[in-house]
Amino acid sequence: MMSVSNAQETPSIQICRIMRPDDANIVGNVHGGTILKMIEEAGCIIGTRHCNTQSGDRCLAALARVERTDFLHPMFIGEVAHVSAEITYTSKHSVEVQVNVLAENIVTGAKKVTNKATLWYVPISLQNVDKIIEVPPIEYSSPEREEAGKKRYEAQKLERLEDKVRNGEIIMSVSLPDRQTKEPFTVVCSQSSLIHLVGPSDCTLHGFVHGGVTMKLMDEVAGIVAARHCKTNIVTASVDAINFHRKIKKGCVITVSGRMTFTSNKSMEIEVFVDADPLVEAEKGKYRAVTAFFTYISLDKENKPLPVPPLKLEGEEEQKRFEEGKARYLQNKAKRLADKERQQ
Amino acid sequence: MMSVSNAQETPSIQICRIMRPDDANIVGNVHGGTILKMIEEAGCIIGTRHCNTQSGDRCLAALARVERTDFLHPMFIGEVAHVSAEITYTSKHSVEVQVNVLAENIVTGAKKVTNKATLWYVPISLQNVDKIIEVPPIEYSSPEREEAGKKRYEAQKLERLEDKVRNGEIIMSVSLPDRQTKEPFTVVCSQSSLIHLVGPSDCTLHGFVHGGVTMKLMDEVAGIVAARHCKTNIVTASVDAINFHRKIKKGCVITVSGRMTFTSNKSMEIEVFVDADPLVEAEKGKYRAVTAFFTYISLDKENKPLPVPPLKLEGEEEQKRFEEGKARYLQNKAKRLADKERQQ
Amino acid sequence: MMSVSNAQETPSIQICRIMRPDDANIVGNVHGGTILKMIEEAGCIIGTRHCNTQSGDRCLAALARVERTDFLHPMFIGEVAHVSAEITYTSKHSVEVQVNVLAENIVTGAKKVTNKATLWYVPISLQNVDKIIEVPPIEYSSPEREEAGKKRYEAQKLERLEDKVRNGEIIMSVSLPDRQTKEPFTVVCSQSSLIHLVGPSDCTLHGFVHGGVTMKLMDEVAGIVAARHCKTNIVTASVDAINFHRKIKKGCVITVSGRMTFTSNKSMEIEVFVDADPLVEAEKGKYRAVTAFFTYISLDKENKPLPVPPLKLEGEEEQKRFEEGKARYLQNKAKRLADKERQQ
Repeated sequence: MMSVSNAQETPSIQICRIMRPDDANIVGNVHGGTILKMIEEAGCIIGTRHCNTQSGDRCLAALARVERTDFLHPMFIGEVAHVSAEITYTSKHSVEVQVNVLAENIVTGAKKVTNKATLWYVPISLQNVDKIIEVPPIEYSSPEREEAGKKRYEAQKLERLEDKVRNGEIIMSVSLPDRQTKEPFTVVCSQSSLIHLVGPSDCTLHGFVHGGVTMKLMDEVAGIVAARHCKTNIVTASVDAINFHRKIKKGCVITVSGRMTFTSNKSMEIEVFVDADPLVEAEKGKYRAVTAFFTYISLDKENKPLPVPPLKLEGEEEQKRFEEGKARYLQNKAKRLADKERQQ
Repeated sequence: MMSVSNAQETPSIQICRIMRPDDANIVGNVHGGTILKMIEEAGCIIGTRHCNTQSGDRCLAALARVERTDFLHPMFIGEVAHVSAEITYTSKHSVEVQVNVLAENIVTGAKKVTNKATLWYVPISLQNVDKIIEVPPIEYSSPEREEAGKKRYEAQKLERLEDKVRNGEIIMSVSLPDRQTKEPFTVVCSQSSLIHLVGPSDCTLHGFVHGGVTMKLMDEVAGIVAARHCKTNIVTASVDAINFHRKIKKGCVITVSGRMTFTSNKSMEIEVFVDADPLVEAEKGKYRAVTAFFTYISLDKENKPLPVPPLKLEGEEEQKRFEEGKARYLQNKAKRLADKERQQ
Repeated sequence: MMSVSNAQETPSIQICRIMRPDDANIVGNVHGGTILKMIEEAGCIIGTRHCNTQSGDRCLAALARVERTDFLHPMFIGEVAHVSAEITYTSKHSVEVQVNVLAENIVTGAKKVTNKATLWYVPISLQNVDKIIEVPPIEYSSPEREEAGKKRYEAQKLERLEDKVRNGEIIMSVSLPDRQTKEPFTVVCSQSSLIHLVGPSDCTLHGFVHGGVTMKLMDEVAGIVAARHCKTNIVTASVDAINFHRKIKKGCVITVSGRMTFTSNKSMEIEVFVDADPLVEAEKGKYRAVTAFFTYISLDKENKPLPVPPLKLEGEEEQKRFEEGKARYLQNKAKRLADKERQQ
C-alpha cells in the first residue's frame, strides 16, 4: 500500500475517470477533445505542484504549448481513461510534462495505450499575472536524459518563435441557403464555427480559460467540419503542435472556427482558429488566441478507416493551403516511418 | 468576407453546438428547454456586446421578456443546432433580439428551421445592479423597419405592464399514496415540481441566474407533467410570452412547479411557476419570480402527433383555468391561420 | 516509473481532479456530495474491474452500502482531490472497498486527509440485471487481515438486514406563507426538497443511477436544510451508514427530502429520504429508494465551528426523532473517543 507522503513527492500523477455519454459522439466514440482536456488537467496539476516547491511567489502553471499528439486507438463510453503525467524536463522558465493515456475496459479487462503527449507549461505568479516565476530544477536519472530534454526544449523554443498565430480572416459559419447552393466537398461547404460564453468552471484560479477547455472546443469544431465533409462517423487521428500565444480571460466569448485544408485518401486536415472577444471590456477588441491543425479519419461500423471524399478546391488561396497541408502530411508520414524503423 | 474588427460592430452572432445525450430525453428528442437556453445565451451575448459599445458603466444584458415561441420541428442527439441572433430594435433602455434556430443533421445534410424567437433585454450596470444603462441606438435599413420595431416595443411594453405574475398557491408534488389513489388524467395526478439549488454556472457575472437556465428548468417540469399525463414521448410545441419580473440571485433554491390547465385533441397546456427562496437571507422570503404556459404534444415512434387523453377536471378552479386555456388555444390557432393566409 | 501493466493488475486505483467552482458552495468549500461522488466512482471502477477478472458473465459493481464516513477537513476550490481505492475484502457475492481522500493545495503544497470511507459493492450481470455474479477471491497479506475483513462483512450484513428503509411521510418543501409564519428553528421551517429528472450522464451502462449521483443529491438537500436553520456557512461533518436497498432506473424523477432531527451545541443531524418515481411506467408507483442521516456543522469566516441554534421541537414525533438522534450522536462521540484512546 502506497504511503501518502511518497505519492505526493514523486513528480508524477495519475488522473482517471469513467467515460460518460456526454464525453462521446452518437456512435459511442469518446471525443478527442475530452481526452485532450484530461491530458491538460494532469499537466496543469503536476506543473503547478512542481513550480510551488520553492519559497517565493505562489504560481499556477499555464499551458504554453502541446507537441504533436497522435490518437492511436478509439476510446468508448464506459471505459476508464487513465491519464498519467510526469515532469521530464525543466528549463529556467518552463516545464516539460509527458503524458500517457490508457483506455481500460473494466468489463473485458482490455487495455490499450491511446495517446502520448508532451506539454510545455510556464509558471505564472498568482499575485501578478504578467510575471513568470523561475522553475525549480528536477533531478535526472542520467546526464543523457537531461541532454535529450535540453534538445527538445531548444527545438520547441525555436518552433514557438517561428510560429506566428495565423492571423487570417475569421471563418464565418455559412448560412443555410448559402451552404445548400454550394457544391458538396468544397471548403466553404463544411466550414463551421462554435461560439462559447466562458463560464466559471472553464477557468483557473487566475481567471483564465484552461488550455484543455480551449482544446476541447477546437476538437469539437474540427469534428463538425469533418462530419459535414464525410457524413460518416469521424474520429480525431492527431493534432499538430499547438502554441498558446495569448491567454483568454473570464467573461470572454470564444469563437472557434474550422475549415478543411487538405484531404489524403484516408484523412482530413482541418485548420482551427480561436478568437476571444472580451464582452464587457469591448475596447480591448477581439483577438486571435490560438490556431491549430487537427487530422481526422472516417470510420465504418467496425471502426475500420473509410476512404475520404477529396476536397474540391476553389481559388488560389485554397490551393496554396492544400499544398501546405500536403507537405505537413508527407512530413508526418515520413517521420512515422522513420520512428517505426528506429524501433525495429 | 468580414474583417475581424467589423465582426464586432455588426449586431449579429451565431452560436452552434452539437446536441449531446444530456440535452435530450430517453428517445433522443432534444428538450425544448435546451434550445431556449441556447437562444437566451445568444441573446445575452449580442445584447451585452452592443450595450458596451459606448463609454460609461460596463453592463450585462438581462433578459426581461421572451415573446411567444413555437417549436416547429423536433431536434435530435448528434444534430448541430445553429442559433443566430440579431439586434432588430433598441429603445432608450431595452434591446430587441431576433433569434433563429436551425437544426442540421451533419450526416444526411438535412436542415430545418426549428424556432424563431424574439427576446427583450435590459442593460444592467455591473457596478450597481439596480441601475439600468442607456442603450446605444442601432441603425435601421429603412424608416419602415424602425417604425415596425417601435410598434413591437410599445406592444410588449403594454403587455408587460398588464401582466402580473400569477400568484397562486404553490403546486406541491403529490406524495405516493395520493398519486396512486387519484384518478388518472386529473390535474393532481400529473402535477410536478423540480427543486434546484442555484450553482455558479447557472449565473451571470452579476450573480443572477441566466434567464435561459430558468427557462430550461421550466420546460423540464412541463415535460414531466406532460409525460405523466400521456405516458408517451412528449415534446415542447410552444411557449407563451414569458416576462421576467424579478431576478433570482446566486444562492437561492428554485422551485419550479407545473400543472396541466388545458387539453385539446392533440395538445396539452401546462402552467409553470418559478419560486425563488433565498437560502441564507431568509428574511427576504420566498417569492414568485416567473410564470409561463408551455404547450406540449405527444408523439408516436415515427414522430407523428398522437391524440392526448382529455384532462379530467375536478372543481370550479380547474374548470375556470381550463376555459382560460381554451381561449388561449383558440386565439393562437386563429393567429396561426391568419399568419398563414397573409403569407400566401 | 510504474509500468503500465502493474498499475492495472494491483487491486488499487487513484482518481484525482481539480476542484472547480461548480463543485463548491459560494464561500468556496467543496460540497461533501462532490467528494462522496468521487469516492463512489473510484469504488465502482475498482469493484467492476475486479469482478470481471474471471470468465463468465460480464458485470458491473453496484453500490450496496457505504459505512459511516467522516469529513475531517474542508476542501477548497483549486485544490486537487486524490481519491485512492483498494479492495480489502471479498465475500462470495460482495466486495469491500476502502477509499482514502486527500486534499492537496498544489500552490502551498499543503496536504490533508479529508475522508476515509468503506463501500460495499455487489456485481450485477450486464445480461440479466437481476442476477448477482460470484466474486473472485482476493489474496490477503495475512490471515489476520482476512479474519478482520470477515468480521466487518458479518457486521455490515447484520446491519443491512436490520435496517429497513425508513418509510415515513414524504417531506414537503414548505411554501412561502407557511414558512414565514412558522417560528424560526423549528423542523418545518428548515425542511427542504430537491427534485431531479435523471439524465443519461447520471446512469451506469445498466441504466441505473450511480450511487454517487444519489449521494451528491442527498448531501445537497441536507446542506440546504442546514443553511436554512443556521443562515451561515455550513459543511458536511459526517454521513451515517447508507444502504442502497432499491435501484433507481433511467427516466425516473427523484425527490430528495431532508428534515432536521437533532442539534447538539455544534452540530446538526439531518434525515434524508430519496424517493424514485418512474415517469412513464407509472403503474410501478413511487418508492422509497434510500434513506440516511447527514451531520453538518456551521463555520465562521476562519472555518472555525460556530454554535448551532437549538432545534425547536413541535409534537411527540419530533421529540422522539430528536431523542433517537441524540442517541446516535452520543454513540458516535463515545466511539470516536474509544478510537482515539486505542490509537494513543
